[in-house]
Amino acid sequence: MSAENIREIRLDIHRSARTGFSEIIYCPGKSDEQIADIARALKDASENILFSRVSEAQHDIIASILPDAVFHPKARLTGVRRQENPHYEGAAVITAGSSDVPVAEEAAVTAEYMGCDVKRLYDVGVAGLHRLLAHVDDLQSAKAIVAVAGMEGALPTVVGGLVNCPVVAVPTSTGYGINLGGVAPLLTMLNSCAMGVSVVNIDNGIGAGYMAATIVRQLHTFKKA
Amino acid sequence: MSAENIREIRLDIHRSARTGFSEIIYCPGKSDEQIADIARALKDASENILFSRVSEAQHDIIASILPDAVFHPKARLTGVRRQENPHYEGAAVITAGSSDVPVAEEAAVTAEYMGCDVKRLYDVGVAGLHRLLAHVDDLQSAKAIVAVAGMEGALPTVVGGLVNCPVVAVPTSTGYGINLGGVAPLLTMLNSCAMGVSVVNIDNGIGAGYMAATIVRQLHTFKKA
Amino acid sequence: MSAENIREIRLDIHRSARTGFSEIIYCPGKSDEQIADIARALKDASENILFSRVSEAQHDIIASILPDAVFHPKARLTGVRRQENPHYEGAAVITAGSSDVPVAEEAAVTAEYMGCDVKRLYDVGVAGLHRLLAHVDDLQSAKAIVAVAGMEGALPTVVGGLVNCPVVAVPTSTGYGINLGGVAPLLTMLNSCAMGVSVVNIDNGIGAGYMAATIVRQLHTFKKA
Amino acid sequence: MSAENIREIRLDIHRSARTGFSEIIYCPGKSDEQIADIARALKDASENILFSRVSEAQHDIIASILPDAVFHPKARLTGVRRQENPHYEGAAVITAGSSDVPVAEEAAVTAEYMGCDVKRLYDVGVAGLHRLLAHVDDLQSAKAIVAVAGMEGALPTVVGGLVNCPVVAVPTSTGYGINLGGVAPLLTMLNSCAMGVSVVNIDNGIGAGYMAATIVRQLHTFKKA
Amino acid sequence: MSAENIREIRLDIHRSARTGFSEIIYCPGKSDEQIADIARALKDASENILFSRVSEAQHDIIASILPDAVFHPKARLTGVRRQENPHYEGAAVITAGSSDVPVAEEAAVTAEYMGCDVKRLYDVGVAGLHRLLAHVDDLQSAKAIVAVAGMEGALPTVVGGLVNCPVVAVPTSTGYGINLGGVAPLLTMLNSCAMGVSVVNIDNGIGAGYMAATIVRQLHTFKKA
Amino acid sequence: MSAENIREIRLDIHRSARTGFSEIIYCPGKSDEQIADIARALKDASENILFSRVSEAQHDIIASILPDAVFHPKARLTGVRRQENPHYEGAAVITAGSSDVPVAEEAAVTAEYMGCDVKRLYDVGVAGLHRLLAHVDDLQSAKAIVAVAGMEGALPTVVGGLVNCPVVAVPTSTGYGINLGGVAPLLTMLNSCAMGVSVVNIDNGIGAGYMAATIVRQLHTFKKA
Amino acid sequence: MSAENIREIRLDIHRSARTGFSEIIYCPGKSDEQIADIARALKDASENILFSRVSEAQHDIIASILPDAVFHPKARLTGVRRQENPHYEGAAVITAGSSDVPVAEEAAVTAEYMGCDVKRLYDVGVAGLHRLLAHVDDLQSAKAIVAVAGMEGALPTVVGGLVNCPVVAVPTSTGYGINLGGVAPLLTMLNSCAMGVSVVNIDNGIGAGYMAATIVRQLHTFKKA
Amino acid sequence: MSAENIREIRLDIHRSARTGFSEIIYCPGKSDEQIADIARALKDASENILFSRVSEAQHDIIASILPDAVFHPKARLTGVRRQENPHYEGAAVITAGSSDVPVAEEAAVTAEYMGCDVKRLYDVGVAGLHRLLAHVDDLQSAKAIVAVAGMEGALPTVVGGLVNCPVVAVPTSTGYGINLGGVAPLLTMLNSCAMGVSVVNIDNGIGAGYMAATIVRQLHTFKKA
Repeated sequence: MSAENIREIRLDIHRSARTGFSEIIYCPGKSDEQIADIARALKDASENILFSRVSEAQHDIIASILPDAVFHPKARLTGVRRQENPHYEGAAVITAGSSDVPVAEEAAVTAEYMGCDVKRLYDVGVAGLHRLLAHVDDLQSAKAIVAVAGMEGALPTVVGGLVNCPVVAVPTSTGYGINLGGVAPLLTMLNSCAMGVSVVNIDNGIGAGYMAATIVRQLHTFKKA
Repeated sequence: MSAENIREIRLDIHRSARTGFSEIIYCPGKSDEQIADIARALKDASENILFSRVSEAQHDIIASILPDAVFHPKARLTGVRRQENPHYEGAAVITAGSSDVPVAEEAAVTAEYMGCDVKRLYDVGVAGLHRLLAHVDDLQSAKAIVAVAGMEGALPTVVGGLVNCPVVAVPTSTGYGINLGGVAPLLTMLNSCAMGVSVVNIDNGIGAGYMAATIVRQLHTFKKA
Repeated sequence: MSAENIREIRLDIHRSARTGFSEIIYCPGKSDEQIADIARALKDASENILFSRVSEAQHDIIASILPDAVFHPKARLTGVRRQENPHYEGAAVITAGSSDVPVAEEAAVTAEYMGCDVKRLYDVGVAGLHRLLAHVDDLQSAKAIVAVAGMEGALPTVVGGLVNCPVVAVPTSTGYGINLGGVAPLLTMLNSCAMGVSVVNIDNGIGAGYMAATIVRQLHTFKKA
Repeated sequence: MSAENIREIRLDIHRSARTGFSEIIYCPGKSDEQIADIARALKDASENILFSRVSEAQHDIIASILPDAVFHPKARLTGVRRQENPHYEGAAVITAGSSDVPVAEEAAVTAEYMGCDVKRLYDVGVAGLHRLLAHVDDLQSAKAIVAVAGMEGALPTVVGGLVNCPVVAVPTSTGYGINLGGVAPLLTMLNSCAMGVSVVNIDNGIGAGYMAATIVRQLHTFKKA
Repeated sequence: MSAENIREIRLDIHRSARTGFSEIIYCPGKSDEQIADIARALKDASENILFSRVSEAQHDIIASILPDAVFHPKARLTGVRRQENPHYEGAAVITAGSSDVPVAEEAAVTAEYMGCDVKRLYDVGVAGLHRLLAHVDDLQSAKAIVAVAGMEGALPTVVGGLVNCPVVAVPTSTGYGINLGGVAPLLTMLNSCAMGVSVVNIDNGIGAGYMAATIVRQLHTFKKA
Repeated sequence: MSAENIREIRLDIHRSARTGFSEIIYCPGKSDEQIADIARALKDASENILFSRVSEAQHDIIASILPDAVFHPKARLTGVRRQENPHYEGAAVITAGSSDVPVAEEAAVTAEYMGCDVKRLYDVGVAGLHRLLAHVDDLQSAKAIVAVAGMEGALPTVVGGLVNCPVVAVPTSTGYGINLGGVAPLLTMLNSCAMGVSVVNIDNGIGAGYMAATIVRQLHTFKKA
Repeated sequence: MSAENIREIRLDIHRSARTGFSEIIYCPGKSDEQIADIARALKDASENILFSRVSEAQHDIIASILPDAVFHPKARLTGVRRQENPHYEGAAVITAGSSDVPVAEEAAVTAEYMGCDVKRLYDVGVAGLHRLLAHVDDLQSAKAIVAVAGMEGALPTVVGGLVNCPVVAVPTSTGYGINLGGVAPLLTMLNSCAMGVSVVNIDNGIGAGYMAATIVRQLHTFKKA
Repeated sequence: MSAENIREIRLDIHRSARTGFSEIIYCPGKSDEQIADIARALKDASENILFSRVSEAQHDIIASILPDAVFHPKARLTGVRRQENPHYEGAAVITAGSSDVPVAEEAAVTAEYMGCDVKRLYDVGVAGLHRLLAHVDDLQSAKAIVAVAGMEGALPTVVGGLVNCPVVAVPTSTGYGINLGGVAPLLTMLNSCAMGVSVVNIDNGIGAGYMAATIVRQLHTFKKA
């Protein structure tokens, strides 16, 4: 087998049946050829598709092969909707600052492609509590909340103390100095004294949106025995 | 105000109404007086109570004040059940090794006090895949899975790829050397390439059980509009 | 010079004139002989003295030499008051949890030996905001606040957003797992998005109490030009 | 609510009343639209405003909306003065090296917008003690000192031993190798054996200037009971 | 000796006799002159040569001096084959994702220059186990496996549990956030609960390929006593 | 299922067929009941068994159930030999210092239970090169070398430069200060500039001995096509 | 070769000729047998010997074999003087605090066994500069200075700025919190802005004393060409 | 004092008398104005001057003011020689690889401006011991050796075992992955089991050259009492 003809891509085509969602392709570090190969392999997929951390150039390659691909620049996502939208209610995405919006959008758009309607509450960080407290009703009616924060990352703790639904915390790399590229808010969230809070990787809006959407979707599709 | 008469304990008595569960008291570092004060303050609570990381001596103090307190030695929990058990189905707790059992039990017993019935699958780590694959049906019928692992912490990733419900990953401090007291499996879980996985602090069985129980309880109490 | 007759202790007797306070002696790692030498050297000091992180055995050595020495067990301090107490008002010490009380007491007692009256607000952590919000008036009337928290350390950020006086944040080593012995709340506090917050070392109640007392004392002794 | 019309900015308009200062806007990571939205929202603010870590391009956007905005390039600040300057005396900013000047200027200009007159002592690091000792009088007459240092960060310890007013230490990212982008001087300052020293994040001139100005302003506005 | 005439390069010409392979030259940080000097010194080498992490510009310098040099762009290697290829069977290289291919190719091409035929299995990561399980036969017939993975790095553990030959694990810097540039998968691999797994530095395809080839070559050249 | 009757142990009984060796049981953190359960389950195993990091008390439990269990105190191993010893030649274990001997013995005894004869070269560290150079012949005739070192961990690099067989490096936690419990020699070994060196976890003698024995055994059982 | 008869100790008997000093034996982690073996092997050594970090029990073993062994409890050293003392002048050992004395004594006694007379200046830390400045003459007449400090570790920087001889800095593990067991002063010293300062491992009094004595001895034995 | 007229530079003009060398100016992060101010202030200095980590543009500014300034591009130094060269013998600089040459040159040129003649031995790393052993005579005749190494940094340990003069170890940032920008060789060197080795910051050729030159110069200027 020569190095020129190595099969570099093996799509996980069973994923939809198994996990309830089709492929999410993480694009950084992939060559243009790999991106194109993947797009071609997904041409006839019947499930929704997401390409994450996509560059504009990578989107153009995808769109030339999958004409129904839509670019979400703020979320750095390219999405392909192949399924009708069930519009599940109950997902919310909240951020501490306006610099956290790209990660929040990544979460929100991911949840939307998984069939959720998403309530967005941005720039309501805890150093000015009144901004957060003005939205307690929105938070308490949610069924799964993605809480996004950089800097010191205190938001999910305060939110977790106000609600009784699951909170998925996302640290962002917003900050400087001993923020350590998001390690500081990550530690804050993992050590949260609030219950019902779990955490995903720094800047991992995709993972948080997926988790929240999984919780909300299950709620709408669950049939009690 | 003299140092001798400082009020050191302020219980969060609104928590039950707000978060759907009564107080969970983290016991390490608390003095015997503080433990006794807390127990007395909870004498007439109408919600279930948990004392976590409780020592046998601390349990004895609690039980002398709250006679309905039950000790769960493996889980290092003292529980007080004040509410009828609704026996919600759908929670599962799975461990990679037998050394992870104490943390797993902490998660399982917490979920039980929150009204869940819990399926336990212990010592099914990924270095011998057949042990895990023998339980795929159990995993795929769950509605929320707590996956507990020390050492390299690969279990939640493999589980996450097999199911379509939320997986709450718990790293344990089982291991040695560059395991760094659980930091290694924590990093593994935060970097998991499987979707639908979120993470709690090292050895935080309480937090994981709480998260899973919140997801399962919501499923059983949710009323579609 | 033989190793047996080395002069191991050199007290900083100019400190009082220079910094407005006499010696604070950090006791861990000091031999009994060193402790006794220090006590003897301070026999006729005219300023207040503090021995910090003192063990009961070390206190006994000190008290045998300085009969006016008082033991503060919760604060792990031995104090000697040689000056009349001016009872400066405006210092407050606040904690997130009851496990943070020893560090808070270290701060409070230090400030008391520096001439301050100290308002104590303990166990008012941010996961149950109502506990904190019930004390906003106390906080807003303070002139310097020591905010003590372990776990995720979010308290100083929330307090900093509620007041307009300086907040000295003290992370404690209360916690487990990726708390890293207090590194997590330390990072949280250093990255705080609230203004007017500065930070001291983990468990450094002495340093925080000293800083707060310096601010308050200066307020009472300042004469406008 | 579509992703296109999300409200991304919520200014903390109560801050002035609550904390005694209007908004400080941290600019890195904010889009041009966000910067412009913020500037427009502050058009009629009656308190002073600061935009921090502002780029020249961002300043131009701000100045096009707020014509009274002034650019301080060395401090990377854009300031808008809406209040008469009370010229409070007592703030000092000191640096170890000349490479620390940008962070020091950030602190000094912040304090100036908060109403302080600021004494600057730059490049007086401790490896040549005589440079520092030549300014002991200036230091001892100050009421709050911001001490800025990179490399090994020893300056605040030495300064703290010479004065009896609060010292706010700022580590800078000046250095290389195991300096770790300012982590080394940060650790030095947090472990300082000098009393009356507290610390802010690496390169956080804003926070240090704000803290010092809060201390000085309070001194001038305090009315003894 | 003037600084202009320093001898900066000393090739390890005994290496072939001693270690069974000629020089591998690590190119980053080397000046063009150093690269050229090395190429000239190897002009008449009788063993195979590899230049690693070679840039296209560096390759051109080498090829102008060693016309038999071949560029492997995906592997970032320039190779010179001076020995007949013995085509030893038994080496395999496997990756978790398609972003790990460059490191995998570095390993594979290195092993090929050391006389091995290499089986490549790319993009078979553990979040979709069926992709890996489809290749169990290939894995179980190998004599040394290089397992390459970024993100959470779980692949070598799962592979190690399926085979009884040595597995050389290579963490890659593929990932983001708390991946820490490959530290996370490195820790995963070092803590692997699977036996028969050892680890090389992050992105060190060369080292892994060399190790695997050493094992395979020895197998083919070993003569039982 | 009650917490009292949970099945906590699932032995990996297919391991022998799959990996060529029976179970190795890591004993720290296991309860006495778990140890006894495991010993009972292995009563009739036909393959060799190892219990690692075994305490004397744990050994006694094992030996009461498996009378053929042998205690190796220096290696902290309990072994059960159920297979005839094939006495494969070619494994060597080398240490830098005498404090590294326990880890080295763990490796050596593991390899012996896997059928190897092991050459031991202890206390030949690189600060006195002549001690190492005196054994070059032993090293160069080996087919797999386990090189064990604490402190700065330079031994495997020097050994790797002298031989052409695989070297498995084991860092030990021997050392103090910035040794960081073995992290320093671990980093040294992972960054080794010598080829043919791979690394296992700190103090992981088991893993290194297993790896070396796998390489040697394969050599003796390999049949060329 | 059976495990019972392994040669675990290989003394570096060429060291004296090569490095000018006989063996220094690091005792922690060595078994009593190993200690006794080493003492026996050195019975007839003609050079001075040091056993470092020796426990009282280990000293007794040594003294029973080497009756001329002397215990230095403060320095945790056992020394054997076999050579006449040349009393080289010029070595000085200085500490910041009294808790640093054990490490300082380790350095001083080591230098004394290497033939130096040592000037000791203890507890002269930089937070009270006058204590240090009172000894400038002693420092400026030294030929090699060992500067020992824990906490923030600023002493060597200040000393380095006052003298023109080499300064060997030793961080100690004295401190708490983010001191990280001596990592903080280690970083301070490595980042020192003073010239002529180099650093040894945390608490490594032996290494620092050895380095200083090497510099001083060379000065007294050097013969200009 | 307006921000425009701040005195940013205070040269340490007493340094020469005190430390035996004039100013070394660290140039990164300094503005062109600062560089020019410094050059002007040194116009009439009678001691040698060094500007370190100087860019070509910065050199041009310096040379326009100080026409006797000489650029050493490999060492990234600009030097001004104002004193006759005493040509002290005994300094040596040795590197493990050719990528370490820039740091080695920084050390060598610094020592040359301090009056030393420097022997250079480059690219003699320990993975091919014979290259090092070929130069044992050169090493053993040196009076102070700077040993420079990146990757795993084992060189100073091996050198330290071969000589009896002081060795100043310099870790370089040459390497990748878990090298961590030079942290790995730094740890190796600090943990060296060889005596007589001390360490400076990563890539700190200046500091190492200064230390070695201080040792050598003192040797030549020392007058025995």
